[in-house]
Amino acid sequence: MSDTTPLIEPRVLKGFRDYPPEKMMPREALIETARRVYRSYGFAPIDTPALEYYDVLAGKGSEETDRQMYQFRDHGDRHVGLRFDLTVPLARFVAQYAHELGMPFKRYHIATVWRGEKNQAGRYREFMQCDFDTVGVRSLASDAEMVLVVSDLMRAIGFERFQIRLNNRKVLNGLLEKFGLRDRAAHVLRAVDKLPKIGAAGVRDELLNVTGISPTAADNVLQLAQLHGSNEQMLTQLAATCRGNELAETGVSELQQVIAWSAAVGVQEPILQLDVAIARGLDYYTGTIIETFLDDLPSIGSVCSGGRYDQLAELFTREQLPGVGASLGLDRLLAAMEELGLAPATHTPADVLIAQFDSGLIPQYFQIARDLRRLGFGAEVFTDARKIGQQFKYADRRGYRAVIVVGADEVASRKIQVKWMADGKQLEFPWDENLSEMASWLRKQLNRE
Amino acid sequence: MSDTTPLIEPRVLKGFRDYPPEKMMPREALIETARRVYRSYGFAPIDTPALEYYDVLAGKGSEETDRQMYQFRDHGDRHVGLRFDLTVPLARFVAQYAHELGMPFKRYHIATVWRGEKNQAGRYREFMQCDFDTVGVRSLASDAEMVLVVSDLMRAIGFERFQIRLNNRKVLNGLLEKFGLRDRAAHVLRAVDKLPKIGAAGVRDELLNVTGISPTAADNVLQLAQLHGSNEQMLTQLAATCRGNELAETGVSELQQVIAWSAAVGVQEPILQLDVAIARGLDYYTGTIIETFLDDLPSIGSVCSGGRYDQLAELFTREQLPGVGASLGLDRLLAAMEELGLAPATHTPADVLIAQFDSGLIPQYFQIARDLRRLGFGAEVFTDARKIGQQFKYADRRGYRAVIVVGADEVASRKIQVKWMADGKQLEFPWDENLSEMASWLRKQLNRE
Repeated sequence: MSDTTPLIEPRVLKGFRDYPPEKMMPREALIETARRVYRSYGFAPIDTPALEYYDVLAGKGSEETDRQMYQFRDHGDRHVGLRFDLTVPLARFVAQYAHELGMPFKRYHIATVWRGEKNQAGRYREFMQCDFDTVGVRSLASDAEMVLVVSDLMRAIGFERFQIRLNNRKVLNGLLEKFGLRDRAAHVLRAVDKLPKIGAAGVRDELLNVTGISPTAADNVLQLAQLHGSNEQMLTQLAATCRGNELAETGVSELQQVIAWSAAVGVQEPILQLDVAIARGLDYYTGTIIETFLDDLPSIGSVCSGGRYDQLAELFTREQLPGVGASLGLDRLLAAMEELGLAPATHTPADVLIAQFDSGLIPQYFQIARDLRRLGFGAEVFTDARKIGQQFKYADRRGYRAVIVVGADEVASRKIQVKWMADGKQLEFPWDENLSEMASWLRKQLNRE
Repeated sequence: MSDTTPLIEPRVLKGFRDYPPEKMMPREALIETARRVYRSYGFAPIDTPALEYYDVLAGKGSEETDRQMYQFRDHGDRHVGLRFDLTVPLARFVAQYAHELGMPFKRYHIATVWRGEKNQAGRYREFMQCDFDTVGVRSLASDAEMVLVVSDLMRAIGFERFQIRLNNRKVLNGLLEKFGLRDRAAHVLRAVDKLPKIGAAGVRDELLNVTGISPTAADNVLQLAQLHGSNEQMLTQLAATCRGNELAETGVSELQQVIAWSAAVGVQEPILQLDVAIARGLDYYTGTIIETFLDDLPSIGSVCSGGRYDQLAELFTREQLPGVGASLGLDRLLAAMEELGLAPATHTPADVLIAQFDSGLIPQYFQIARDLRRLGFGAEVFTDARKIGQQFKYADRRGYRAVIVVGADEVASRKIQVKWMADGKQLEFPWDENLSEMASWLRKQLNRE
């Protein structure tokens, strides 16, 4: 390579991101937590290709997702697209293997999706989704289980103050029918969905001017959306409002059941809250719907949303495939954890750095590292023969809290020096076969007991 | 949706794969093991976009990778491509952030890559790579560390019988210089690389007919490639052969150092074996090279390969970025584990299925599941109101080993019945607050003690 060859500018595409270690480590930890919680309920992982036939993906989301889809012709002139969510691949997957899989089919899927969104702050063209669904079950026990999973998940991540807001599309659809608004249901629900953002007056404006319904109908809708009180009070009021419409009445009794079953294991107010204004944009939800908000950061929006649907895969199969599931908003949650100081403070993958005092002692450094690993500690040996000051700078930059320093003296006296970075204190431990004294000190210092 | 709407056939693109739970669970376990081992040496995770500017990816691999790259114009008419490996993104990443990162930079990267390969058995167009690299260090301690990581990794996965074959490109290049074959080095090395596949006669043919070197030169090369004996014997023979060529002599002393440092922590023959026939196809390796073979399945090829390179990112930066690293062949390893019976036998994400005897007892089932989860067990509640026989079939199909059966009688007597699927025996435990008797029995049965 000649020195005059023009260089290629190293850069990423707009709307795409690199994850350096300090971003990636909390991300991996969060994914690991989600995986653990999903598994503890019997959800099993699947994966599907990032690339699918265009006709498998197109027309399954919204007009917007179709427009945003990355699509092209491959080497074999096939029209292909990059998946834009994990629901369409799930539908395709379940339709393709329904009989081999057996129902119920409980899966989680944690994978990257792509959308060619208009470039704007906070919008990314590549992001990760983290979904769990139970397919093939009509029982509301699965709806209640979704609520429990979300509650466990939030606690496992470290949140205590959050709300799972619960609603049911049957209540909404039934009441819209009752109010004579069935034909404009999608528009009305979309307007109602904006209540937290644009307020009652804004929603009323939109109902009147955009959706074009009568002032009376708009007031009925707004009154419903603003219903408040305890879950029990709201259920009573809702039951009264819904009387006479079968669909809405079913919705109310479904809400009652999900609330009762969740309460049986302690998931209740103030965690679980009935909220008639939650509508979820997506048209395919048909029963229970949930959104999850952080008490300390409501502005960030829902961090975990989902619901029940009647027919997952109607474009792929005549088989009825009902189900229920939700999606964890990884990026939002990570942003929230950062803002609320819930992300772990240290970003080192290993616990201890072993400095290189003398390159002749590399075998000893390797041995100490091996022994520490056997005891369950991560240990990085500084392999480059740099000045010791530079090595401490490296330790500091990487966030190492303990640095082991061993020179010829320590080898002779069979001692190990450990510097605790926070206070700069240096301790000496016997260098015996199982490093027991140092190990128990390290465990205490690193809160590993 | 009308019943006459034509359905879309659910199918995946050729060369792409779905991962159902039974394929995905061993995959997740293997990735988790790799992650744990990488971290224990201080490697930290990164991620980069799947899509990059075409000019960032093109011309960095081989002509073949350029041809195989999935490329297209995005919504903004930018020429983009899907990454075909994790080395080019690492080069771009390190060049872009070199000063913020600080050296040494030790990273692992586990992510999907795409290549529009010709469709043939065992070749996939989408697969996962699992790389670790130390960038910015010239010390051979990092080369030895690579050997140790691979050794730990193989043992952590469950392999005891494997070989890490070690060579050094300086030896190869120096000797080719000595033999007057420097100008045809790449061709000669490519021929030598095929020794395990096509044998000595095949390589000789290729050297004579394709590479066009003299019979004497071909015999020199073959003699070298077939060198055998203990590491010490081979080092002695190599040292003699290399005498007079500075590059080759350096290579021999590097091999000596890496072998000595690895041996310091017990990684030696028969695990670590000098093998002069290992050449690694890629031109960018400049020093140490390794390949890893399973004793019980050598035909599967190298399951972990890597080496040292002088300049990672010369197309992006004038800065010298030497490094050393290797890549774990996930798919090969998984295939090998399956063939050798090393994959875990059970494929359930949770430990226990709680059958639904009576839908009125859903609260109790949820409570037992919650209590089991608190004790560290995974527990799936069967949420669908099916016949108990169908639920046992489900348990069997999913690989559940224990099924909890609780009906009205058990609720009354505060007992829990557990059926152990392997022998069909049913045991009864007291249903006390912390399920202690059942928990300790389960721990024993599931080998969790």
